[in-house]
Amino acid sequence: MAHINEHYLKLKAGYLFPEIARRVRQFSEENPELGKSLVRCGIGDVTEPLPSAVVDAMHRAVDELACRDTFRGYGPEQGYEFLRHAIAENDYRRRDLNIEDDEIFVSDGSKCDCGNILDIFGHQNRIAVVDPVYPVYVDTNVMAGHTGPADNSGAYQGLVYLPCTKENDFVPDIPKERVDLIYLCFPNNPTGSVATRKQLEGWVNYARSAGAIILFDAAYEAYITDPEIPHSIYEIAGARDCAIEFRSFSKNSGFTGVRCAFTVLPKTLVAFDSKGEKKALHPLWNRRFSTKFNGVSYPVQRGAEAVYSAKGQQQVQILIRHYLGNAEILAESLRSTGLEVFGGRNAPYIWVAVPSGYNSWQVFDKMLREIQVVITPGVGFGAQGEGYFRVSAFNSRENAREVARRFKEVHW
Amino acid sequence: MAHINEHYLKLKAGYLFPEIARRVRQFSEENPELGKSLVRCGIGDVTEPLPSAVVDAMHRAVDELACRDTFRGYGPEQGYEFLRHAIAENDYRRRDLNIEDDEIFVSDGSKCDCGNILDIFGHQNRIAVVDPVYPVYVDTNVMAGHTGPADNSGAYQGLVYLPCTKENDFVPDIPKERVDLIYLCFPNNPTGSVATRKQLEGWVNYARSAGAIILFDAAYEAYITDPEIPHSIYEIAGARDCAIEFRSFSKNSGFTGVRCAFTVLPKTLVAFDSKGEKKALHPLWNRRFSTKFNGVSYPVQRGAEAVYSAKGQQQVQILIRHYLGNAEILAESLRSTGLEVFGGRNAPYIWVAVPSGYNSWQVFDKMLREIQVVITPGVGFGAQGEGYFRVSAFNSRENAREVARRFKEVHW
Repeated sequence: MAHINEHYLKLKAGYLFPEIARRVRQFSEENPELGKSLVRCGIGDVTEPLPSAVVDAMHRAVDELACRDTFRGYGPEQGYEFLRHAIAENDYRRRDLNIEDDEIFVSDGSKCDCGNILDIFGHQNRIAVVDPVYPVYVDTNVMAGHTGPADNSGAYQGLVYLPCTKENDFVPDIPKERVDLIYLCFPNNPTGSVATRKQLEGWVNYARSAGAIILFDAAYEAYITDPEIPHSIYEIAGARDCAIEFRSFSKNSGFTGVRCAFTVLPKTLVAFDSKGEKKALHPLWNRRFSTKFNGVSYPVQRGAEAVYSAKGQQQVQILIRHYLGNAEILAESLRSTGLEVFGGRNAPYIWVAVPSGYNSWQVFDKMLREIQVVITPGVGFGAQGEGYFRVSAFNSRENAREVARRFKEVHW
Repeated sequence: MAHINEHYLKLKAGYLFPEIARRVRQFSEENPELGKSLVRCGIGDVTEPLPSAVVDAMHRAVDELACRDTFRGYGPEQGYEFLRHAIAENDYRRRDLNIEDDEIFVSDGSKCDCGNILDIFGHQNRIAVVDPVYPVYVDTNVMAGHTGPADNSGAYQGLVYLPCTKENDFVPDIPKERVDLIYLCFPNNPTGSVATRKQLEGWVNYARSAGAIILFDAAYEAYITDPEIPHSIYEIAGARDCAIEFRSFSKNSGFTGVRCAFTVLPKTLVAFDSKGEKKALHPLWNRRFSTKFNGVSYPVQRGAEAVYSAKGQQQVQILIRHYLGNAEILAESLRSTGLEVFGGRNAPYIWVAVPSGYNSWQVFDKMLREIQVVITPGVGFGAQGEGYFRVSAFNSRENAREVARRFKEVHW
């Protein structure tokens, strides 16, 4: 008699974005005319075309597969050396960060990586997440059986929630209690906040003293404009001994539909077995890739490689400036209506306090009905997200201007 | 203090194919001249170029991503409707098998699917695998903690091994003891055997009576030439209530480097919670996709869709005939040297009994040194694989002929 993984039954409602999609679909079906003028600032999905350097590289790679002499079948599960090298060289070594090619693991997405990384850790670890939080960190821990049931606020027993509030500039304080795995995401999704070097040093020092590991999600590092803000956790001394970094081509190069990302797992990184002996994590993650994955699509890897070409880098910069320009327009409009606005400077997300008398799903529904703009309700990211909503700057300039105009029409 | 998943430490040596790669690399470094004439019949990797229907579709899709009006970002995690529909319609409904579009889950590979499916099942299930076996079924169960340590023969405590031998035509007998999850793979990797309708009926009846679930790997179904052999487990009455099917574009359309596969999980399929209540598996698998995956690369999905076009189907048939033609040439050569040969008729794999006095790694090393042909040692697939080696028919015709010639030169 086959048994299910009952931990799945603890998961609350739908995952946030399918629930948003459901409400939008329902609205559009009930209001077909209004539905036509809908503008989406909800999900963090890019809107601008792929850089031409990427397009050209993908075409070339597809042509290689069309010809027996240049055809490639299975590639290395961890990614082709040409891409691992381009990543390690450009994102790390050129910035004086000591990361070797084989410390890069190329995958089909940071969402997958953030979930899959749990495979190599034991169930006894105490997990800390920030609140508000990218739901995938929480839900994958629930599914893996690392939590008890959720309470009425949606918080799961056994997880340590680190509040990110206006008071701490949306950067969590070091926890008083012991934690073993800590998810940090900077520039942050959803709040758009960044962590200073000093704040990250605090986390690295804490992790090293506690034998804890930081799971550092840097999917939005390309949006950092402030030269003082670290792009990588490895800019902090000692991080090679306590941190795994997640990066993605989704938000810098428009790969949300193309699918490519990577993890950095230093060979110096260890965790403990039940006898208290140190074990390197790199062979475990390597084994997971060899056994449960078969590498990223070859044309996709060639596309990702092209991101690091001179032309690719130039085109990525244009994309980033475009989205950050949208963020400025949107934030300015929201501020002009008297709302309190955070983020949007080193991140493509704007985090907005809801006017009193509303909760965040009510603001979602109101925006949808009154101005046909899709935002993301803060509570979808955790209890501390209640009282806020997220506006994504991923859009055309025209749409960003239109949304900025419509924001001023909302009757609060 | 972060703890590792100690189950990983139970895994024996390297995963089979990396070990083969290591020995081949070492041989080539030590014998650079001989290394040049190496022919690989080891790993089951396709060699012929992608069908032009697929190439054209991928180019068109890349061009769509190059243009704002046709750009697509995140797709549905479970796959685009255009592809789910094409699969359900062509692979199932046109063969009078009742599978709905949303019972298809598009993924980046069957290797991933075979491992990931364990996420939705509880740890208390008793797991049956065939022996010899595709190592991924076993290793992913070890990593998930479903086994004890391995014994000297490489068999893991707690797994139920179902021997596939010459005596049972390499199709396992129904087990006497209770099992809850059963991996079956037909046409089989590595033995090239197929299961008859009657044999599959026996398995479906057993699974239904035991409340067990069959994980049916049909990655090689396109190679079935015998009209009496079922292509899908759903050709057996009752299978919708007890089976999940895995399919792939790797071996029919040459997608090993492109990456696309799918699972079929019928909405009627249930397993049990700890109270003994029935729970549908479809929502769990759907939730796993939503939370831990972000869909297959868009150009890849368009490429897979093109496999079902008239031109695509014609080109796939040419590929299949090509590889089966190789299988015939290779099997014939091996037989002519007096070896006992199985498979290769409805599958791209030939399973060969090693001459007495050798074990299968010795045959591997001998073939590598004497004739520079890479085969796969049977023991890499499990204890019952000792005494056999696998020859893959994935090659150019020229190479297949050359290998057939060289087989005759081995001095046993």
